[in-house]
This record gives sequence, C-alpha cells and structure tokens, in this order.
Amino acid sequence: MKKEDVPEIVVSRLPLYVQTLNQLLREGQSVVSSSELGERLKTTPSQIRRDLSYFGDFGKQGTGYEIILLMESLRRILNLNQIWQVVLVGVGHVGEALLNYDGFSRKGFEIIMAFDQSPKVIGKRFGTLAVKSVDELEAELSKRQVDIGAISVPAENAQEVCDRLVNSGVRAILNYAPIALEVPEGVQLATIDPVVKLQKMTYYLK
Amino acid sequence: MKKEDVPEIVVSRLPLYVQTLNQLLREGQSVVSSSELGERLKTTPSQIRRDLSYFGDFGKQGTGYEIILLMESLRRILNLNQIWQVVLVGVGHVGEALLNYDGFSRKGFEIIMAFDQSPKVIGKRFGTLAVKSVDELEAELSKRQVDIGAISVPAENAQEVCDRLVNSGVRAILNYAPIALEVPEGVQLATIDPVVKLQKMTYYLK
Repeated sequence: MKKEDVPEIVVSRLPLYVQTLNQLLREGQSVVSSSELGERLKTTPSQIRRDLSYFGDFGKQGTGYEIILLMESLRRILNLNQIWQVVLVGVGHVGEALLNYDGFSRKGFEIIMAFDQSPKVIGKRFGTLAVKSVDELEAELSKRQVDIGAISVPAENAQEVCDRLVNSGVRAILNYAPIALEVPEGVQLATIDPVVKLQKMTYYLK
Repeated sequence: MKKEDVPEIVVSRLPLYVQTLNQLLREGQSVVSSSELGERLKTTPSQIRRDLSYFGDFGKQGTGYEIILLMESLRRILNLNQIWQVVLVGVGHVGEALLNYDGFSRKGFEIIMAFDQSPKVIGKRFGTLAVKSVDELEAELSKRQVDIGAISVPAENAQEVCDRLVNSGVRAILNYAPIALEVPEGVQLATIDPVVKLQKMTYYLK
C-alpha cells in the first residue's frame, strides 16, 4: 500500500499506539491483546486491528502482539529511527518552553536553530544554541537542510514566517500561533492551540 | 437535539469555525458562503452545512452566513459567553508559558490558581497570582469551584495530579504531560503533546 493511501486519521493514531506500547513495556509487559490496547487507547479492538492491517500482519490470532516488535515496526513506519532536526522561529514564552523541553530530544527531535526578531532575545543561549536574528533565516537554512519548522511567533506574523520556512525547504510545520496557516500541497501542518481544545471541552461543561 | 447526540468530532470542529469566522470578521467581511468557509477550513461546503445542521438553521440558501450571527451562535453553543476559571498544576517551563500567555484571558480562560511542589517555585508571582504548594490543592479547591484543570507536571506525576483535581470537582482536564491519562466518565480530557503531532508528520517526510 502506498503511503498516501492510508487514511490520515489512521496515521495520526500511530504515535499514540507507540506511546502506549512504550508505557506497557515500562510497566513490564511483553505481550498485549488488541482488547487491552483498545482499552488503554479508548477505542475498540477491531479499530486497532483495522488500523494496523494497513501496515502488515502484526499479531497472531489468540496470542496478541509482541510489544517490542509492534512498537519497533510502528516506529519504522513513522520514520522515528533517526534524529529529526527542527528550526524554531519565535523565542517568547512558548519558544523558551520548547527549547527547554527535554522530551523533544529524548524522542528524536532536536532544535538546531532558533530565531527571533527582538534584540532582547537575539544572542540568548540555550545550552549550545544561540538565538539568531530572523533576518538570517534564509541564509542559515541555505547552509543546512532542515525538514521541520516550529513557529511560536504572534498570530499576525505567523503566515509570513511559515512562507519563509517553506520557501527555504522546510516540509513540516508545527504551528503554535493561534491562527489557521496556509501551506502548499505536500507540506505537512500541525497546529497546537490549547484554546481550541478548551473551547471544545466547555461545550460539555454546562 | 441533546448535547450528547452531537458527534464529538463535530463539536471539536466548532472552535475552529469560531476562529475562522473571527478572522474573516477582522478582515472586514460580514457574510460568508459555505464554500468559502470550507476552503478556509480545508473541508467541503457540505461538511460545513452538515456540521452546522446539528445546531439549527444558520444560512439562507444562496446568501451565505451572516458572520457575526453565526459566530455568536457558535460561541453560545460552546458556552464561551462567560469567563472560565482554570487551576494550573506544575509551574515549570510549560506552566510558565501558560501563565504568561495572554491569549487565554483574551479568549475567556483565566488561570486563577497555580500549584507546584518545588520550594524554588512556590511563592513565585505571575501578575497578581502567587504559586502555592501542591499540598494545598484540595484545601484551595474546596473554597472555590473551578471547572478546568491544566496539568503541566512530569509524566510520572500526572495521573496522581489528575485524580486529585477530579476528586476536587474539576470537570475538564487540559493535559500537557506526555502520557495518556485516565479520567472517569463525564470528565473531559484533552491532551497537548507536540511530539505526537511531530511523529504523525514524519510519516510523510520520507
């Protein structure tokens, strides 16, 4: 099956499978049934089996999945067996939190450049990384291919920054600005907006 | 139609509709067609019409939607015409970013208490709010009903904090810890995990 033929909603569940398998492993388990996995992931065993069937035949009838094997297969499918380099634009509170978040590097994502437009922030160091002026964005990205860009600038600047990243060869955007960005076909986009998540929950709160 | 009869996936799109309508309004537009709305939201006009039909009849055939009216209706449906109070547990880098994020209060979410376990952080001030010891969580929440809890503690402490919040009457959890939390039926849960979003995108990056 071709990459594009797998429904996007299925792909978006795979990282959660990896997370849960990892958790089970840490809890000392080595085999898991689709019903236990379904329970952990708040879905049905048949959903789990259907999702996984897009990528191969992972379980034996009646014996469940070998956790390590399944997790390693999913990690390979998600291209997680490499370090992904990330360029960050916007070093305000959110950008700082990202630079200080060790979960990124532990999970294979390394912020290798950070840019800001404020003279107060340019030059600031985070470990071995120094924040550069956003004016140098194109020049720096022409020296090194970086696939992933994280945007944590104010909403009004986010589309411009996004365009500049995409024009410099970035193929996936993690957007923290509270705005719907436009990206060309073939460029991945994920938006993180806590307010959108909160506003969904308040629907149920009355 | 009862609240629970609307598919959750439809509810989760409503905040994005509000966001986009708001953006159109700021751009000076007063009426929008379902096709334009669909284009902005990367979905189809029929999907938009189907989603909205759960809540009433908002558009006139051929003339499109009055943006202000539709936005105000959706805001009412999502219970956004009030200030929602939020309790935050965990004032590390992410917690600080949340406390400093003015988009929360501008959109009707106000962090009114923050807790941490570290003596280095307890007592720290953010505007008028001082971080309290997490030991006082139950006592403080017994004085005031708070509906929403934001969790930004390490993964290994997140479930315990979640249980304590729920036992103190919190009915919606915004979880920043990279772990799948368990909540009782009737409690809302949303998880924000950039790594999960990144890992979905890397699937397409090779």
